[in-house]
Amino acid sequence: MTLLRLLGVSVALILSLAAAAEELDKETVREANTLISRSLDSSVGYDIINSLTTEVGPRLAGSEAEARARDWAVAKFKTLGFKNVRIEPFSVDYWERHVESAEIVSPFPQKLHITTLGGSVATKPGGVTGQIVRFASLKALIDAPMAGLAGKIVFVDEYMTRTQDGSGYGVAVRKRSGAANEAGKRGAIAALIRSVGTDQHRFPHTGQMNYVKQIPKVPIAALSAPDADQLQRALLLGEVEVKLSLEVESLGPRQSGNVIGEIPGETDEIVIIGGHLDSWDLGTGAVDDGAGIGITLGAAKMILDLKRKPQRTIRVVMFGSEEVGLVGAKAYAEAYKTELDKHVIGAESDFGGGKIWRFDTRFGKDKLHFAAAIQAVLGPLGIALGDNSASGGPDMGPMRALGMPVATLKQNGWDYFDLHHTANDTFDKIKPEDIAQNVAAYAAFAWMAANLDGHFRASPE
Amino acid sequence: MTLLRLLGVSVALILSLAAAAEELDKETVREANTLISRSLDSSVGYDIINSLTTEVGPRLAGSEAEARARDWAVAKFKTLGFKNVRIEPFSVDYWERHVESAEIVSPFPQKLHITTLGGSVATKPGGVTGQIVRFASLKALIDAPMAGLAGKIVFVDEYMTRTQDGSGYGVAVRKRSGAANEAGKRGAIAALIRSVGTDQHRFPHTGQMNYVKQIPKVPIAALSAPDADQLQRALLLGEVEVKLSLEVESLGPRQSGNVIGEIPGETDEIVIIGGHLDSWDLGTGAVDDGAGIGITLGAAKMILDLKRKPQRTIRVVMFGSEEVGLVGAKAYAEAYKTELDKHVIGAESDFGGGKIWRFDTRFGKDKLHFAAAIQAVLGPLGIALGDNSASGGPDMGPMRALGMPVATLKQNGWDYFDLHHTANDTFDKIKPEDIAQNVAAYAAFAWMAANLDGHFRASPE
Repeated sequence: MTLLRLLGVSVALILSLAAAAEELDKETVREANTLISRSLDSSVGYDIINSLTTEVGPRLAGSEAEARARDWAVAKFKTLGFKNVRIEPFSVDYWERHVESAEIVSPFPQKLHITTLGGSVATKPGGVTGQIVRFASLKALIDAPMAGLAGKIVFVDEYMTRTQDGSGYGVAVRKRSGAANEAGKRGAIAALIRSVGTDQHRFPHTGQMNYVKQIPKVPIAALSAPDADQLQRALLLGEVEVKLSLEVESLGPRQSGNVIGEIPGETDEIVIIGGHLDSWDLGTGAVDDGAGIGITLGAAKMILDLKRKPQRTIRVVMFGSEEVGLVGAKAYAEAYKTELDKHVIGAESDFGGGKIWRFDTRFGKDKLHFAAAIQAVLGPLGIALGDNSASGGPDMGPMRALGMPVATLKQNGWDYFDLHHTANDTFDKIKPEDIAQNVAAYAAFAWMAANLDGHFRASPE
Repeated sequence: MTLLRLLGVSVALILSLAAAAEELDKETVREANTLISRSLDSSVGYDIINSLTTEVGPRLAGSEAEARARDWAVAKFKTLGFKNVRIEPFSVDYWERHVESAEIVSPFPQKLHITTLGGSVATKPGGVTGQIVRFASLKALIDAPMAGLAGKIVFVDEYMTRTQDGSGYGVAVRKRSGAANEAGKRGAIAALIRSVGTDQHRFPHTGQMNYVKQIPKVPIAALSAPDADQLQRALLLGEVEVKLSLEVESLGPRQSGNVIGEIPGETDEIVIIGGHLDSWDLGTGAVDDGAGIGITLGAAKMILDLKRKPQRTIRVVMFGSEEVGLVGAKAYAEAYKTELDKHVIGAESDFGGGKIWRFDTRFGKDKLHFAAAIQAVLGPLGIALGDNSASGGPDMGPMRALGMPVATLKQNGWDYFDLHHTANDTFDKIKPEDIAQNVAAYAAFAWMAANLDGHFRASPE
């Protein structure tokens, strides 16, 4: 870090002043570089993640713990000096986990480590017992005949590919809902999946699933990778019978909310950054998404400490109930739909705590010079210029769909799905030096986006 | 492996023939090298570990599952072609785990991942709740005044050092019994320890503890490392109250047993190798001690396949009830105490599945040339000559105490305490190439020990 500051950032200053001269005024670039330098020396992001994961812990959408997280967020925003701090409430369908267990009943009695997927129905009291029918992939189950699975437990044993950019997730996650719905169509009594994850530890990965209407609802749980292996090995030796007991409950609407704090600007335009406040119930939500909260709130705090008013308002949004279907993001987009043209750009951090390696955008095609100008400043942090098909993060989705430009400060997600949605997602997995790099990048990005003379939307033709 | 065979073993043959010429006849050395070469190409050890951990799974001392493991062992011995296959039963005090949970009640309500230590008493029904008092080490608790802990929960937050030779364990493990007994003396209502382990995953490590007579029995559980961290962080912010519910039961004497199979020799002398058949209840006992079973039974099978009768009988012993206090080892020593002079040497594999890097002995001082002669053959496997203070493995302890010479084929235990006594001790953690190296070393060692012209005990003076 010291080397980067001594060499990189001073070189960066010169290089980026040259590269960005046309797009960004010298003072803004100088301030962005100050933010980078100070952020790399600061533990502000790391400390916020510590505080959230320790003082709140797990915070499931709609739970009493998520309400405590909102109180924590309001207090934290205020303590740090943000303005217009507020909770914007909305309603979410609440589901919770009670007791869950699975075991091989025959031929080799032993426990299996599983976790119910969010939104699943419960098994009948006392559990269900059935013969396992394994499918190597969701596709194999979809292609299977409609007959032959009545009374059985479907096991979709599909693997997930480890990638830097997390692209393995989009494929693997389909089985979460798919396995239950395909099993339901065929009269199966339950479904099991190999966890959507890349680790080889005995942690099952939870995550939201959704039933298709008019298909019988089948309870579904994920096996940890070692337990999926064990079931696979047992099946090589003959028929296997498993007992599954999932005590979970859907309890109807509960209050959730987005928590917002601002650095007011000179104009009514808004740069929006943030993460999501809720987490799954198993871990303490450090990488998902304590990291995003710490990174973006920490970055905004670095900007606050500059003590210079940005041109545009910098709004930090901690979205509620992301995990169960972007409920907070949809509520935000609905609430602000008439003001969306004032949202000049949005970027969410929701991919863990790994270093940022690429700056992707979704700008008007005639505005890509702004992407290059911003990236020129971020480059010394090890961040390359990416493409123009950024998502901006899950919670920016509803606003992106309505035309808001977005950026993705793309993190290295190589290890992210080792921890994602498991009990093992805890604060000790957070690396302070990686968080500091993220804070530096978000602070510089948000500062430049707030002060840049121009817009990211395509110019009217 | 191929490189080792192409270069190493052929060089080894020449070198070891030279080095060992005086101690070992050429034919024995040639056969030992054949065993090494064939073992490196074989998956016999790996396959045995697979079979035991899949077809039996967890096998707690005295449980129905341990009985199934004995049946598995008898069948495996017979299938592989061993002679004099038998179970030698003994009795063990049976303890079992039912349901266990812990949570921070205030100020930050959240679950903690814990596991009860073996032999602990249960908490009262419904659990106990108390304020946490942290001690940075067992020593700090021992040095604490007798007053001030009544009604509290003691938390011994001592760390374990990661080492290649496992030497960090001997120090760290003292808190398992120590924390409960010191807490009991002081009127505490329960004790928690940071797990005796080296990982940073959310797995608590179980293990046996023993109460000192006449001290009140206090229930005790281990926290996973991330949970110990969390408690430590919460305590930095003020008083912390924890609720602990440990439903466990001591159910009195149950049957256990050692399982034995042999390669009969020309004489009535015995070379004894083995591992322990029981495991803790949380994992499937792959590294502890499925590995030792696979390595030593696999090595003996390689010798069987030589189809040459050894001079001495090679006896493979799968000890029962090791984890709860070397109960099988003590039963064996008692049963064979009048024949112990016929046991020329013993070696147990009970330190996981890592590669062997050192050959330690406990021979008569005038017999160390035999250690050098055997090591000369093992050297190309990456095995150095060690010292003469070997333990021979836990289950050789009672016989070692009665004067039996032992050897330790010392494994690299760098990662062993990441998995030891956790739910994460599963078959996927076993590396086939490491097991093959272990099988090669044990096969060569046992073959040389069985055919060597001489004894390892000190000569009468």
